[in-house]
Amino acid sequence: MAVGNLTQDELDGIYAFAVDLGRKAGNMLMERVEQRISGGDALSQQFEEKDNAVDIVTQTDEDVEVFIRKAIHAQYPSHKFLGEETYAKGQSREYLIDEHPTWCIDPLDGTVNYTHIFPMFCVSIGFIVQHRPVIGVIYAPFQDQLFSACSGRGAWLNESRQLPLVRRPAVPPMPANAPAQCIFACEWGKDRRDIPDGNMHRKIESFVNLAAELGGRDGKGGMVHGVRSLGSATMDLAYTAMGAFDIWWEGGCWEWDVAAGIAILLEAGGLVTTANPPDDPETAPIEDVRLGSRLYLAIRPAGPSATETGRQSQERAVRAVWRRVRQLSYTRPGA
Amino acid sequence: MAVGNLTQDELDGIYAFAVDLGRKAGNMLMERVEQRISGGDALSQQFEEKDNAVDIVTQTDEDVEVFIRKAIHAQYPSHKFLGEETYAKGQSREYLIDEHPTWCIDPLDGTVNYTHIFPMFCVSIGFIVQHRPVIGVIYAPFQDQLFSACSGRGAWLNESRQLPLVRRPAVPPMPANAPAQCIFACEWGKDRRDIPDGNMHRKIESFVNLAAELGGRDGKGGMVHGVRSLGSATMDLAYTAMGAFDIWWEGGCWEWDVAAGIAILLEAGGLVTTANPPDDPETAPIEDVRLGSRLYLAIRPAGPSATETGRQSQERAVRAVWRRVRQLSYTRPGA
Repeated sequence: MAVGNLTQDELDGIYAFAVDLGRKAGNMLMERVEQRISGGDALSQQFEEKDNAVDIVTQTDEDVEVFIRKAIHAQYPSHKFLGEETYAKGQSREYLIDEHPTWCIDPLDGTVNYTHIFPMFCVSIGFIVQHRPVIGVIYAPFQDQLFSACSGRGAWLNESRQLPLVRRPAVPPMPANAPAQCIFACEWGKDRRDIPDGNMHRKIESFVNLAAELGGRDGKGGMVHGVRSLGSATMDLAYTAMGAFDIWWEGGCWEWDVAAGIAILLEAGGLVTTANPPDDPETAPIEDVRLGSRLYLAIRPAGPSATETGRQSQERAVRAVWRRVRQLSYTRPGA
Repeated sequence: MAVGNLTQDELDGIYAFAVDLGRKAGNMLMERVEQRISGGDALSQQFEEKDNAVDIVTQTDEDVEVFIRKAIHAQYPSHKFLGEETYAKGQSREYLIDEHPTWCIDPLDGTVNYTHIFPMFCVSIGFIVQHRPVIGVIYAPFQDQLFSACSGRGAWLNESRQLPLVRRPAVPPMPANAPAQCIFACEWGKDRRDIPDGNMHRKIESFVNLAAELGGRDGKGGMVHGVRSLGSATMDLAYTAMGAFDIWWEGGCWEWDVAAGIAILLEAGGLVTTANPPDDPETAPIEDVRLGSRLYLAIRPAGPSATETGRQSQERAVRAVWRRVRQLSYTRPGA
């Protein structure tokens, strides 16, 4: 399957390069952790604060981004490059991705986890053509979990096991009473301002609606099977692609946090749209997510039942979430 | 170091047996997962509901508990045994552990995670003498992470790397402004009743206090570095022992969820006390946790600073949490 001006052969070559690059970059992250451990200094990783005390960056983020950028530039000098740390140093907050082949990467997602050596940190490498993420590589080196996908080639765990962890014909539909029986993944995020009806409080209200017993919360109670927060949007998406999480709902992260994960989720058969409920959640069209929108709702791959296609069961789950969540306010120019 | 009537040699033998048993039981969990995956049936694990729709048990929980119970009875016929599934089938909800050597085990912690194949599931094996957890083994087979400790023998990851992941003299104290700069682990749990000022709402209010910006929430804002929920109390405790989490606060789980984790946390140098703040959180004595209390607050291992012992910095963190959380109502007879 060709994508843009790229043949499947060319895509396959880029995919192999991206997987190799992901492993190397993840190994760099892990080497730094090993150095901290063997130096008896594991919890003293230095970091600098960006927007606030929980928005941090380490020298490792910057070093690994430079490594990835140089490797891509040497191999594919005509491709564009967008990395979290490069972007953070730029003046513009515009959405910079256009129709050209573009690498969109986060050298270290879960930086807070990384500084504390909680294993949920990873490198995220996405490749985008004509605004569509077509290749994704996510590598969490502490756990040696490499998630990857290429358009037309399937989605994989450690390059050997097909994602989701089920054979395609047997993927179950979303539960009939979703969000009940679903694992719901979400993040508290970096916006902790205690503003009445601000983002933090709207998020929490939404989480509580999804968690509360059926019939509770004025009928909004969703009684999800579990609420999980890992501190990494990228890992959330990877686990949703794998089917370990059923629903991921998030506002506030950026395109480099999700580009690779969206490529993997879509190739695995998942759905991703906006987190913000439209005025009529029951009938509004369910549109493809805008990569730079900072508002994401992902549903795991789902197969058909006797009465629904897989896509129908996913859309039912989207509407079930939209009915229970508040609109979030994360914006930017140009997206 | 002798414990009760047991010499260190006897304890060492029990420890080696427990580690071996943990690996075998974890491998049983993983074999069942592999069967589901290779059968194309990964997400269709059958389960039964216990107290409500999110309190579930599978045949695997029961089979693994039987395996562990038989192995222990064959090796140590005089030891007492308390397992989650055995207890659940009993008539009494009393706290059953007395001064005798007792095994306290959860064959599968994170059963919801297990049914969804989210990797945060594990077996938990604790050994208690004179009410004190002295041996703990936690094995999460999907990630091949085995946490273990024996009184007098240190705390370990995969039997080779000392916990916490720092050399003892270099363990940092709790942050000066804790709970800021701390990763805070907590769980939404199974009690989802939408009762005004009920457990769910008290938990959420407490979580929000810890997460909100400094100065927010009428001064209760803690601006923690991150809020994490894994869906496994046992894994939360293991990661706190490792120093990956700084603070774990939880109500509602049971002694088999925490016995092994407490043994590991204590041997690593952590502190565990009650989740429920006393009337005077600033001056009340910080007492050792009661294993059957269902209310737990754990603080990671901490070393000294120029002005505090490690224990003093941990106690400061306990009080900083107590000032921000609500009392929870989880009770039982006999504890």
